Amino acid sequence: MAQAAAQESRAVQATIGDSEFDRDTAVTLREEGVYDAELSAGWTIIHAVNGGYLLALLGRALGEALPHSDPFSVSAHYLTASVPGPAVIRTQVVRTGRTLSTGEASLFQFAEDGTEIERIRVLATYGDLDGLSDDIRTSAEPPAFPPLEQCLGTSDGASVIPGSSAITERLDIKLDPATVGWAVGAPSGKGEMRGWFGLADGRDADPLSLLLTVDALPPTSFELGLKGWTPTVELTAHIRCRPAPGPLRVSITTRNLAGGFLEEDADVWDSAGRLVAQSRQLARAPRG
Amino acid sequence: MAQAAAQESRAVQATIGDSEFDRDTAVTLREEGVYDAELSAGWTIIHAVNGGYLLALLGRALGEALPHSDPFSVSAHYLTASVPGPAVIRTQVVRTGRTLSTGEASLFQFAEDGTEIERIRVLATYGDLDGLSDDIRTSAEPPAFPPLEQCLGTSDGASVIPGSSAITERLDIKLDPATVGWAVGAPSGKGEMRGWFGLADGRDADPLSLLLTVDALPPTSFELGLKGWTPTVELTAHIRCRPAPGPLRVSITTRNLAGGFLEEDADVWDSAGRLVAQSRQLARAPRG
Repeated sequence: MAQAAAQESRAVQATIGDSEFDRDTAVTLREEGVYDAELSAGWTIIHAVNGGYLLALLGRALGEALPHSDPFSVSAHYLTASVPGPAVIRTQVVRTGRTLSTGEASLFQFAEDGTEIERIRVLATYGDLDGLSDDIRTSAEPPAFPPLEQCLGTSDGASVIPGSSAITERLDIKLDPATVGWAVGAPSGKGEMRGWFGLADGRDADPLSLLLTVDALPPTSFELGLKGWTPTVELTAHIRCRPAPGPLRVSITTRNLAGGFLEEDADVWDSAGRLVAQSRQLARAPRG
Repeated sequence: MAQAAAQESRAVQATIGDSEFDRDTAVTLREEGVYDAELSAGWTIIHAVNGGYLLALLGRALGEALPHSDPFSVSAHYLTASVPGPAVIRTQVVRTGRTLSTGEASLFQFAEDGTEIERIRVLATYGDLDGLSDDIRTSAEPPAFPPLEQCLGTSDGASVIPGSSAITERLDIKLDPATVGWAVGAPSGKGEMRGWFGLADGRDADPLSLLLTVDALPPTSFELGLKGWTPTVELTAHIRCRPAPGPLRVSITTRNLAGGFLEEDADVWDSAGRLVAQSRQLARAPRG
């Protein structure tokens, strides 16, 4: 309860540009196209740095390097596991156009001898979300799940991931009770995970934070009865609209767990009922 | 009828490695990591070279450059429109691992003064499809659509794309009658396109040709009542299984046409009922 109250009081303070997320995804220009960054230990699950947080960090660097500032489509291939600490992001402008620009970025960390080790490589196309037409013909329906107050968060014991996961303190995730069976040893057997998503300090969503949102819920494999990690091989996120203020709804589905791999499709809906982001990742399935 | 008979006779001849598709996606090593290629006019829609054909060409080069030969996840950002003629593919090995390797490839063509113009850039992770586990828990259902003989192909007037489209002679696509309303001025209004897919010369599918298959059907926007092009911005394909011989079923859906862009999700099923490929692309929506 004390923690909930603390989060409540923080919720009125943080704004886009002045928040935990913004501070922890900050990049510092070292030279043209090269940015220094510090991977915060605040976005780890056990010891692994969350893949969505890393995507947002790379997305921030590309937004600075490219003439357009909003990620439209970001494709990331995950190479080696990142750890908290210093990193460098090397960007390249691939093409600049009137409405879209494409860039590439790699995040490196350092071996003991100082050698750079590549963690993730990203190709991304950026544009101007505010310049898009108002023509909306979305046939997808927002997922049907209970109101926020009936969903379950960390304080309800729902997000009990074994071990210490700092990221749970940064996020305000409330899962649909229908997709938390895994937490009490009764997974649904369906490849579904749904929840309300917010940042714990109350910062509203923007296109960059959506890159975090698409990879922030527990993996669908938990509800398929599989424990252990689902390391991402590839993740592509399409940001389709600037999100309205307020909590987001995230729905993740897996339809093909086969051959030791699974896909996770995420849809993110804003408080205005717009489908603001769509992502798909290919991940390794847990063994057990 | 004469053409159908000719296709029938060709159908027994072509094999994986000796077919139109294989000849037209051949790459020639120029120097380490650099491959010369010739974009065939045989895979054009009006004057545009099909994006799936280009993806297969890049996929072929990466399969030669990387220690693993099967594409698992290929992410392509389309930069400028390709034209038939010479091209060069420059590859880079990003990471090699025991079960997965990641590479990058760019396809360039040439300005009149010989300057290279980048057409597409790809990040891809390769592996060994034959080395995957037999654990299959696919919850997705193959699309329900009519048997091949009830579906409609070029000779039935269904694929009447205005202008000359050489690619229609290379492909044996039979569309579900429920998704060909666009061809007779009565689009369904649904973002769906479904069809049986084969290569006209009878070559069976392999992981490389699946990269073509995911982008070979008419765009869903036709059934949404929009004529004109839907140029691809980004396309990621996941190859999940080596396809069995025989015709493939392809189902494409669009759930979010908004702001001048749309996504197309393709599922490809083989004759054994396996979900062999999944792809998603972000494309510009036609204006009208």
